[in-house]
Amino acid sequence: MSDLSSAPARVQGSVRIVGAGLLGASIGLALRAKGVDIILDDASPSQLRLAIDYGAGRAAEPTDDPSVVVICVPPDVTARVIEAELAAFPRAVVTDVASVKLEPYRALLERGVDLTRYIGSHPLAGRERGGAISARADLFLGRPWVICRDAETPAWALSQVEGLALDLGTIPMEMTPDEHDRFVALVSHTPQLVASLLAAQLQDAEEGAIQLAGQGLRDTVRIASSAPELWVQILSANHAEVLPVLEQLSSDLASVISALRDPEVPGARRTIADAIAAGNTGVARLPGKHGQNRRFASIVVLLDDRPGQLGALFTELGEIGVNIEDLRLEHSPGANIGLAEVQVLPEVKQRTVDDLESRGWRIAEV
Amino acid sequence: MSDLSSAPARVQGSVRIVGAGLLGASIGLALRAKGVDIILDDASPSQLRLAIDYGAGRAAEPTDDPSVVVICVPPDVTARVIEAELAAFPRAVVTDVASVKLEPYRALLERGVDLTRYIGSHPLAGRERGGAISARADLFLGRPWVICRDAETPAWALSQVEGLALDLGTIPMEMTPDEHDRFVALVSHTPQLVASLLAAQLQDAEEGAIQLAGQGLRDTVRIASSAPELWVQILSANHAEVLPVLEQLSSDLASVISALRDPEVPGARRTIADAIAAGNTGVARLPGKHGQNRRFASIVVLLDDRPGQLGALFTELGEIGVNIEDLRLEHSPGANIGLAEVQVLPEVKQRTVDDLESRGWRIAEV
Repeated sequence: MSDLSSAPARVQGSVRIVGAGLLGASIGLALRAKGVDIILDDASPSQLRLAIDYGAGRAAEPTDDPSVVVICVPPDVTARVIEAELAAFPRAVVTDVASVKLEPYRALLERGVDLTRYIGSHPLAGRERGGAISARADLFLGRPWVICRDAETPAWALSQVEGLALDLGTIPMEMTPDEHDRFVALVSHTPQLVASLLAAQLQDAEEGAIQLAGQGLRDTVRIASSAPELWVQILSANHAEVLPVLEQLSSDLASVISALRDPEVPGARRTIADAIAAGNTGVARLPGKHGQNRRFASIVVLLDDRPGQLGALFTELGEIGVNIEDLRLEHSPGANIGLAEVQVLPEVKQRTVDDLESRGWRIAEV
Repeated sequence: MSDLSSAPARVQGSVRIVGAGLLGASIGLALRAKGVDIILDDASPSQLRLAIDYGAGRAAEPTDDPSVVVICVPPDVTARVIEAELAAFPRAVVTDVASVKLEPYRALLERGVDLTRYIGSHPLAGRERGGAISARADLFLGRPWVICRDAETPAWALSQVEGLALDLGTIPMEMTPDEHDRFVALVSHTPQLVASLLAAQLQDAEEGAIQLAGQGLRDTVRIASSAPELWVQILSANHAEVLPVLEQLSSDLASVISALRDPEVPGARRTIADAIAAGNTGVARLPGKHGQNRRFASIVVLLDDRPGQLGALFTELGEIGVNIEDLRLEHSPGANIGLAEVQVLPEVKQRTVDDLESRGWRIAEV
């Protein structure tokens, strides 16, 4: 079995983490599990103490000689901290995890900072909750880790950052700062803003409307609970790339609004249907959960809502020899029943359903 | 234990379902499990045959005398079918499940149709996939079922529709057609359109951008895979209520775009931060999954990715006597490890963690 802690660390030497919030503390937790010496620093003594208590690393000492510095501070101060850390630790590779890559890079170039030992990073991971208290060693598992090196980047420096990314269980991906910023404007920054603007319409909603809200709305606005302090920095730093996406969206929205003013005008319904169909095409491009309907087959089992039912179900699935690829438990408010939706490989579905039914489980129609 | 099939049906007599798609066939499946005689009809012979083969009901016969007719046809033809069914079955209560309630009601009133035996319904349930093939008896479990009666509605008719709603495991909620349409414009129709417009921006996305897409984007655009044919009808029928919400959203978007043109102008960052903060306030109003962080405590257990592991975990949770309120299984691409996030009542969390650890389970940091 391979997991986060079983393979030896690829990154060499001590790792200094500046900023012991969600990302910094999570990196510390994951690397410490591999035996790496982690030095933590934070402008807030209480945040630093919390992260150390939490097991994410130790306090800095005057004799520290880190081989890698990872800067996990808010985007607004990232460039300044990169410059300070490059000066303070002249043998270390310095990287950062800011969500915007071009602005800090350009600011440092303009100030004439030697960036040979700097490599920009961006792990595409996070949670709606921030702070060391929300940190978890598995935060990065399977997520992309963007690496922005340039022509001057020495191989030894690149291999340290790649090693760090692999140690955290991420998938390293090289791209330029321009590419990175254009990509995240589309798949991260714009969706964040759209979710926030949509959720904002619920602020003064009548209670009756809230009672009708379902999973569709919940999913659509989930990320709207993200922190304003952080996102104003990200959106401001990447405004040049976010703006064209928002302007296109605004123009598309204006077309639909115009069509909805009088849907009986010739062409109006076509405009609305085209907008929904364009969304179909767009969402179909995303891999992952959407692809699961094809990769796995779904079996829905009805369960009593009491201890041991899930245990019995999964024990028997183990006895049948079926591996569970994914699962979802649904609670039905007002019903003493649960639905366990189990994803299995398509080729074992029928056998699994038959075996479960012969053992007395009730399978819901799918 | 109460479940879908164990209690006797509250609805009296035969139920005729017109339109054997996702909703019609799902209603049929659920009521048949309670022994109700279900008569299916559909303009498409192949859809009808599929739903009958599927077990959702039987074909219509000339001697049918249904006591309830449930109309599950697209919104555009709902009013016409209501009128026809009221005429064809003069002793039946007629209801429909269209997502818009005022337009068909008003159209029938204008045509002078006697609506004494008509009661509008709207079960807030659905899937991105349509058709009888996607039907499931548990589709409605725990969801609201809106009932729009008026002053003329006789008690016997109301009790039939309420009985039907309860038989399907839904929560009946009475409101006027105006209220219903205003509420769903906000919590269903606008989110659908926003998800579609956002997803549409991905149509021509560069492959590198798609590779960076994460769960946040996936959730935000999930419902964008809904059917254009259906949604153009819903949005057109409810355009009067959807328009003001879209116009407010468009105006909010314009403010943010203006602020992002130059985030260094005084007040610009404040505008952006206010938009994100307003989204925080809006999303906090939604009950359900978002409230779970408060209602339940989370325990993340690391699992080997092989048969029997989940069974062993849940068996031991049963032995400990802990009820699992909800759970989520995460697969980590590239790692032979799974994360089972189990939600339990906060008061049993510490005991559960201690017991699991003493039994050798590895608990991830939360």
